[in-house]
Amino acid sequence: MASRRYAVGVDFGTESGRAVLVDVADGREVATATYEYSHGVIDEFLPLGERKVRLAPDWALQDPDDYIRTFRSTVPAVLRQSGVDPASVIGVGIDFTACTMLPVLADGTPLCRLDEFRASPHAWVKLWKHHAAQPEADRINEAAERLGQPWLPRYGGKISSEWFFSKALQILDEAPEIYAAADRLIEAADWVVWQLTGHETRNSCTAGYKAIWSKQDGFPESDYFAALDPRLRNIVDEKMSRQIASVGERAGDLSAQAAGWTGLRAGTAVAVANVDAHVSVPAATVTEPGRMVAVMGTSICHLVLGPSSREVEGMCGVVEDGIIPGLFGYEAGQSAVGDIFGWFVDHGVPPEYHALAARQDLDIHALLEQEAAKLAPGESGLLALDWWNGNRSILVDVDLTGLILGMTLATRAPDIYRALIEATAFGTRLIVDSFNAAGVAVNEIVACGGLAQRNELLMQIYADATGLEIPVAASSQTPALGSAMFGAVAAGRLAGGYDSIVDAAHKMARLADVRYRPDPDRARVYDQLYAEYRTLHDYFGRGANDVMKRLKGIRTDALGAGG
Amino acid sequence: MASRRYAVGVDFGTESGRAVLVDVADGREVATATYEYSHGVIDEFLPLGERKVRLAPDWALQDPDDYIRTFRSTVPAVLRQSGVDPASVIGVGIDFTACTMLPVLADGTPLCRLDEFRASPHAWVKLWKHHAAQPEADRINEAAERLGQPWLPRYGGKISSEWFFSKALQILDEAPEIYAAADRLIEAADWVVWQLTGHETRNSCTAGYKAIWSKQDGFPESDYFAALDPRLRNIVDEKMSRQIASVGERAGDLSAQAAGWTGLRAGTAVAVANVDAHVSVPAATVTEPGRMVAVMGTSICHLVLGPSSREVEGMCGVVEDGIIPGLFGYEAGQSAVGDIFGWFVDHGVPPEYHALAARQDLDIHALLEQEAAKLAPGESGLLALDWWNGNRSILVDVDLTGLILGMTLATRAPDIYRALIEATAFGTRLIVDSFNAAGVAVNEIVACGGLAQRNELLMQIYADATGLEIPVAASSQTPALGSAMFGAVAAGRLAGGYDSIVDAAHKMARLADVRYRPDPDRARVYDQLYAEYRTLHDYFGRGANDVMKRLKGIRTDALGAGG
Repeated sequence: MASRRYAVGVDFGTESGRAVLVDVADGREVATATYEYSHGVIDEFLPLGERKVRLAPDWALQDPDDYIRTFRSTVPAVLRQSGVDPASVIGVGIDFTACTMLPVLADGTPLCRLDEFRASPHAWVKLWKHHAAQPEADRINEAAERLGQPWLPRYGGKISSEWFFSKALQILDEAPEIYAAADRLIEAADWVVWQLTGHETRNSCTAGYKAIWSKQDGFPESDYFAALDPRLRNIVDEKMSRQIASVGERAGDLSAQAAGWTGLRAGTAVAVANVDAHVSVPAATVTEPGRMVAVMGTSICHLVLGPSSREVEGMCGVVEDGIIPGLFGYEAGQSAVGDIFGWFVDHGVPPEYHALAARQDLDIHALLEQEAAKLAPGESGLLALDWWNGNRSILVDVDLTGLILGMTLATRAPDIYRALIEATAFGTRLIVDSFNAAGVAVNEIVACGGLAQRNELLMQIYADATGLEIPVAASSQTPALGSAMFGAVAAGRLAGGYDSIVDAAHKMARLADVRYRPDPDRARVYDQLYAEYRTLHDYFGRGANDVMKRLKGIRTDALGAGG
Repeated sequence: MASRRYAVGVDFGTESGRAVLVDVADGREVATATYEYSHGVIDEFLPLGERKVRLAPDWALQDPDDYIRTFRSTVPAVLRQSGVDPASVIGVGIDFTACTMLPVLADGTPLCRLDEFRASPHAWVKLWKHHAAQPEADRINEAAERLGQPWLPRYGGKISSEWFFSKALQILDEAPEIYAAADRLIEAADWVVWQLTGHETRNSCTAGYKAIWSKQDGFPESDYFAALDPRLRNIVDEKMSRQIASVGERAGDLSAQAAGWTGLRAGTAVAVANVDAHVSVPAATVTEPGRMVAVMGTSICHLVLGPSSREVEGMCGVVEDGIIPGLFGYEAGQSAVGDIFGWFVDHGVPPEYHALAARQDLDIHALLEQEAAKLAPGESGLLALDWWNGNRSILVDVDLTGLILGMTLATRAPDIYRALIEATAFGTRLIVDSFNAAGVAVNEIVACGGLAQRNELLMQIYADATGLEIPVAASSQTPALGSAMFGAVAAGRLAGGYDSIVDAAHKMARLADVRYRPDPDRARVYDQLYAEYRTLHDYFGRGANDVMKRLKGIRTDALGAGG
């Protein structure tokens, strides 16, 4: 067994980090360990003990030392559990939520570690779901349109408040002293790789999808940044880097310090950083055009590979080398999916079904799935628009809201539960249609993530509603597996790894035995319902009736008048 | 006190009958008694003991002997409770649900009392909510349109499956032997008056609103009936009567037999029959044009008086002398109001609010009203269409269904509860607008019924949303009070009663102290929301997008395929 080689993937999530130790030969997940961040999501007070520094609404921060603690806790744990010799671990990869970014000194020290800045919220890590930079995003979009910036169509015509420059500009607006003190503004993904290797690298995935970079054109020009704020003119050269490494490259070797944290050997190969959704693509066996990966959880991220750059309506971004080197990676998304079902079970299901679930010893989701599965397509008489958290793709409009139509006095909770699932399935179909219409082929959907693992009815409805076959990734932790795969690629074939992520995927990634196939009869009914969905989608989403936005405006006025 | 005079009103409801004994001088309700029908609503099996005769879906029957038992139980009870001398009771009036009808022999004997017909469902009383005659209603409407019947516009362009000829035609279709054996087909309202007086009369209210009669033109012509079925050609002359007595007239004197049942004196004046909603109008103080009466419960019935006949979009009917002699009575309606709130608390409110209601010792409706009252108009961000049971006025379309729009992950049950109330208020405003647009003035709404008595938030929202003042009737049993008032009119002034229902209303009907007045700020927000409601109402209700009907069609197909 001397020839067995392993790789470690570390997946940094919203509430915790997870390491998995993987057999490089076949992708077998040998050991897993997780670390719950000691400060979790910081959205009320900074973690300063006695001292109370309250955060404004929509803020969401993290403590970078939780990432270090993740390395120190989880990697030794998987080594211990597996009994694997650190010498046979050939590579490490990491993936992260994004855009999750922080200001640091030239040596990588986070500003929030410094006494002088510790009580300043802007010195901490801004988590992906920090939503307080909307005014900055609005200015970024307004200026981009005004100045006819050529990169805007690559992002579906709109930059999100979650993305890098929105967050950076908020720091400048609200805490110019932090902006000035920051030698670097950096994605947390790249920062943790820096902590492993001892030197800074920046990855093509977050640069491309979150920071308006492209391999062809680089970052937006200085004049554009200056139009936002003169102090921002040289942000790229002053606070970032124009050196962007492609995912799949080797960032460097594990430092002695990081070897001490992890128990791995110094010199172990470290992969360029990656993003949780995107790194799942090869872990779900996809390294070629034609097969969409749907990462299905509270939201859905849709990832497709193409040989060239096309303008796809409503996509989140297209990035060369963004997912698989040599291909253009397309990203689209539905901003609430599992979240809608969660909302419904928490806020729309009467006691009767909770009691029934308890009697049958079922989770309330499982009970509703069981009841909804008794209905034929169309039997509920309901149709919904899945816009509880706005619409990311293909309308790119956060001000859209949810709709349910068709209720009668006979409507029951399982009817609504099923209609909500169907609505999200139609949302995915519309995204598939949008890709196909733009010439980016989607012939199959490979599903991964929690919903894909757990919810059979939902998966069958997605197959029936899209008319596509839906295989499911074998791994229940595709991000960590994908990171380990990139770790094996960073090591390279000569060290017992692989020369490319395509090779790694062939050996290390697998599909589960289950494959959801559309049923022709059900698909026919869903074709009818989808036509109705599209009509409503266009009526409410494309300006024929902007009632949803006007209601939001009236609501804002009402809250203002009351407050 | 020898001069005190009393009248008795008996209100025949869906589940029970109720008598009230009223002081003729001032309308004071001295005593009340109710009788729960021993057979209630018969909708599964005929009440034949061992023998099982099952009813088809949508059937709803009653036992006419329950009406006799109501007289025998409740009238003696109010005399006993009050200690009033039967000699000082000068008149009796009754009101009934409608159209509630039955086949009888020439002497008034219900066919269902005869052994040979007792096991035949069609021999029993068809209750107003018997909905199995839709195919017959479709034929009636189709023939009316084809033959250009002039009376169709008086009924909003559509005859309901609940109405007299739909039910009569169903008897002929499905049980021609019952149709043949029936010497008379008669409203239960008129039948109970017949039982009191010993001779048949027919009232202008049910004839006008339910049996296509008008003072001007009488019933539809024989050729029309023959077009439906040749055997129906002479239905009016063979099974009904062209002698229609106006409400407010005296039907006759109490018979010796009925005196025995009730404890009243033989010869007591008996009023022509009336309908529960319509008889509430003078009991709510309204005997003149300009003031709409809204009878607010599971549904809302809107009643308005006018000096002439106008075509009002979507009304249920206009009948000369139908409510107040000498005036045209207009009826419109919303087919589900309280029913929608009932549906929501039963099927859409999570355990959290039920628990909160229990802790605060509140009814769940009261708890939701309390929470919804904390919201400003527009704050929920929601808008609904109140079509859970179709739309009666003004669209006259049973195939429309409910809609809620504006949901986000932050939407909670009180938001939805308030939006549902607002939607029904907008439905009423649209009906008010329709009357005003047709030249039938509505300057104020007088509310009565359970919702008006109980739900303050709802009433204030109706005032704010319609921009009209809403006084509330003092009586919580306006139908029974109204019937007693008509009893006093049947007795006449010389006997200590009144010569007209207008005089009776001046003395006997009162408003409660509460009067809901629109708040200008809230009304301004509701003007905005109502404009949005109208846009959606017209989009989904007037053919621009018939998605609701298509979903019903798809649902029917789905159920058919599954069954």
